[in-house]
Amino acid sequence: KVQQDRLMHDIHSTCEWGKGERWGDGHTETGMSRLSLSDTDKQARDWFAETTKSLGCKVTTDAMGNQFAVRPGLNEGAPTYAGSHLDTQPTGGRYDGILGVTAGVEMLRTLNDNWVETNYPTGVINWTNEEGARFPKSMVSSGVWAGDIPITDAHTLKSVIPANDTATMKSELERIGYLGRTPCSHTAMPIAAHFELHIEQGPILEAENRRVGIVRGVQSYKWFTITVRGKESHTGATSFAHRADALLLASKCILASHRIATKHNALASTGILNLRPGSTNTVPGFVEFSLDIRSPSNDIVEEVEAECRAAFSALTSNDSTEPEAAHSHTSSLTCDISWRTDFVSPATSFHQDCISCATTSAAALCSPSSTSTPEADANLNLGAWGKLMTSGAGHDSVYTSKHAPTCMIFAPSRDGVSHNPREFTTPEGCADGAQVLLGAVVRYDRL
Amino acid sequence: KVQQDRLMHDIHSTCEWGKGERWGDGHTETGMSRLSLSDTDKQARDWFAETTKSLGCKVTTDAMGNQFAVRPGLNEGAPTYAGSHLDTQPTGGRYDGILGVTAGVEMLRTLNDNWVETNYPTGVINWTNEEGARFPKSMVSSGVWAGDIPITDAHTLKSVIPANDTATMKSELERIGYLGRTPCSHTAMPIAAHFELHIEQGPILEAENRRVGIVRGVQSYKWFTITVRGKESHTGATSFAHRADALLLASKCILASHRIATKHNALASTGILNLRPGSTNTVPGFVEFSLDIRSPSNDIVEEVEAECRAAFSALTSNDSTEPEAAHSHTSSLTCDISWRTDFVSPATSFHQDCISCATTSAAALCSPSSTSTPEADANLNLGAWGKLMTSGAGHDSVYTSKHAPTCMIFAPSRDGVSHNPREFTTPEGCADGAQVLLGAVVRYDRL
Ligand SMILES: NC(=O)NCCC(=O)O
Ligand SMILES: NC(=O)NCCC(=O)O
Repeated sequence: KVQQDRLMHDIHSTCEWGKGERWGDGHTETGMSRLSLSDTDKQARDWFAETTKSLGCKVTTDAMGNQFAVRPGLNEGAPTYAGSHLDTQPTGGRYDGILGVTAGVEMLRTLNDNWVETNYPTGVINWTNEEGARFPKSMVSSGVWAGDIPITDAHTLKSVIPANDTATMKSELERIGYLGRTPCSHTAMPIAAHFELHIEQGPILEAENRRVGIVRGVQSYKWFTITVRGKESHTGATSFAHRADALLLASKCILASHRIATKHNALASTGILNLRPGSTNTVPGFVEFSLDIRSPSNDIVEEVEAECRAAFSALTSNDSTEPEAAHSHTSSLTCDISWRTDFVSPATSFHQDCISCATTSAAALCSPSSTSTPEADANLNLGAWGKLMTSGAGHDSVYTSKHAPTCMIFAPSRDGVSHNPREFTTPEGCADGAQVLLGAVVRYDRL
Repeated sequence: KVQQDRLMHDIHSTCEWGKGERWGDGHTETGMSRLSLSDTDKQARDWFAETTKSLGCKVTTDAMGNQFAVRPGLNEGAPTYAGSHLDTQPTGGRYDGILGVTAGVEMLRTLNDNWVETNYPTGVINWTNEEGARFPKSMVSSGVWAGDIPITDAHTLKSVIPANDTATMKSELERIGYLGRTPCSHTAMPIAAHFELHIEQGPILEAENRRVGIVRGVQSYKWFTITVRGKESHTGATSFAHRADALLLASKCILASHRIATKHNALASTGILNLRPGSTNTVPGFVEFSLDIRSPSNDIVEEVEAECRAAFSALTSNDSTEPEAAHSHTSSLTCDISWRTDFVSPATSFHQDCISCATTSAAALCSPSSTSTPEADANLNLGAWGKLMTSGAGHDSVYTSKHAPTCMIFAPSRDGVSHNPREFTTPEGCADGAQVLLGAVVRYDRL
């Protein structure tokens, strides 16, 4: 059995590197701001390498800075991994990603404590820049590993935080000493199976009073950057009829995307908006904003995108009949709109073998004294305190699932809050998840 | 008569300091980016002081960095000034403010060339941070001079460009050596009359084919910063019903302000919008935006403000009936909105004596060979190629008019474009304006 206190100690002691905004009085009541490949991310990486080495692992760093810590098994072969990430959002919390990696370390500690020998190697992975917050492609390094993203695209990604930063992924990997010589690929670093414990980041498990979620897949999503070009003009001397106000149009687009997503029961969100020149008395001539469209269905993501493209274009013209154009003064000038696709992650279904191992392990956690075999009762037991569910967020498991059996385990998030300093999962919730993770890895190894 | 070439040389040679975005191939076809109290603003200030000294002026710098260059007259007394500003917008042009100061210098040169002795001193003023672009209070230094803005409020104003700059007006005045020892006040530096030549920054003169505008007053305006506080959450794992999206609400507010201003035939504009944390997959929990409301009528500015306050508050609630709330998913969470008033500039009427001097001077420009006296024909002649008009933009003349007879002269703006690199006034338009300025100052001096 995993040790809850030891796990929580690993979480909170490593969260000293990159501590974020305070939200409560307690020592651990701060968020995290550990951007990928920053100095604090380097500290967390160093800890990961040293700790796993001291637990008997061989640690390999690949050309994207992904860290693979491998504990030998009785036989040679591809390892069964627990993997997640140590980078965070700029105003993130202490659990997103961090729980998965520290639970992997706790798995190694527990295997060692109990002198467990696995049939094949087991290991833990720390994936680089999963968040896509600093370098705006989420899961980019597992994407390179999977062969879906060319390494030069990834290496040349430019930092978007802090603003005006000129760093690229490659320059930052070099700077902090994590540009490994091992190629980043599923052939150079094969994976037998990938299990990822993660916080749910949504409200369902808590609302339904469940202890753990078994994730059967991840919804589809696409990221875009939309650029609006209008004309700078004087706010006092320029009538509405003589303006091409890039921010007014961007505001209409944001409302339109929300309306269209609502209609399709999908999600559309804008998290970044930059404008120029940024002066109280100058109508903005330039706006750039992000658009993140999601749905469990690839088709619906495509439909929402198509409708947004049509609506945004219509809004640039003066005879628009889009609801967002009502009440708006028509102008003799118009803005231009252009779209760039930054990231595409189709809907993913995880592997039935992995889902079975995780489900069985979850069932074992809650009915250890059951007389029937846990395997038989797995689905039944899951009904009461666990849940088979779909993930709203993307994870590195999306990419590992393309070349290795994969599934995920979710721990409940308080109030469904994530990407926020107040993100919280109870110590019991963390330990439950880690226990299911350990059980799933061991079960898969025995398969 | 003023010399057009010499004036244009002063404009374009001083525009080497702080040259902005290029828009054409010609040597002078760039905009300007000379933020107040920057290094390039210091260069322009040094030029102003040296040039006016070499023309026989005594130059005084006050505690806001305002520069007063005074050419002695036959008698002692308060000088009649031509004044404007040398700072620009971050993406401004070569004429806004700069024309007024260089035309003042050209006035001094012309008076010297012709050995003109005025009854009382005449002079030129360079007002600090007129734009309010870097330190977000427009006309702040003439405001301090007028006694309307406390000097500590002005000195402690924080730079808003570049983002994250920590400079204050006082620290920058000290840094560039322009924190003068003379108090900034209308008693320490009295003004007999203030004439300001400026570009129109709007399309009217050009559209009506007029050579010059005589400005009888300035419209009313108010500046606000509006802060929206929502909740950061994950864009993929958080349903619309669980969000408090600060950017979605800000977008609705921007559209509402536009709708309300349209209804009142007023203006409402947002030129600055900053959000946090600024990550593609995090719903923004914080947005701050500027709102600039204008109308010739103080009452209408108040009404638009009141309706915007009511509409923005209504939009935060879930049962809003504002048009901007239609089609939007209701959420169980709400955002908070707060307003800060940054700047108030009531409607201004200029002084009849100054308007007369400028009108007569304008009439003389165009009918120099007329047999009737220019004075008698002034209003008649103005009808054909000049125009009595109201300014949409605020100017330092708003504040000087509180303690000294004041009026303004407008030169036509190509396409009405201003606060834009492409801002343009023909050399003839510049020279016409400078000629009317010179005539107005000399006429007032003789009054
Ligand atoms: N789990 C998580 O926050 N992943 C980042 C990619 C996404 O936005 O879904
Ligand atoms: N003329 C000018 O741009 N003044 C700045 C103040 C304003 O925004 O009206």
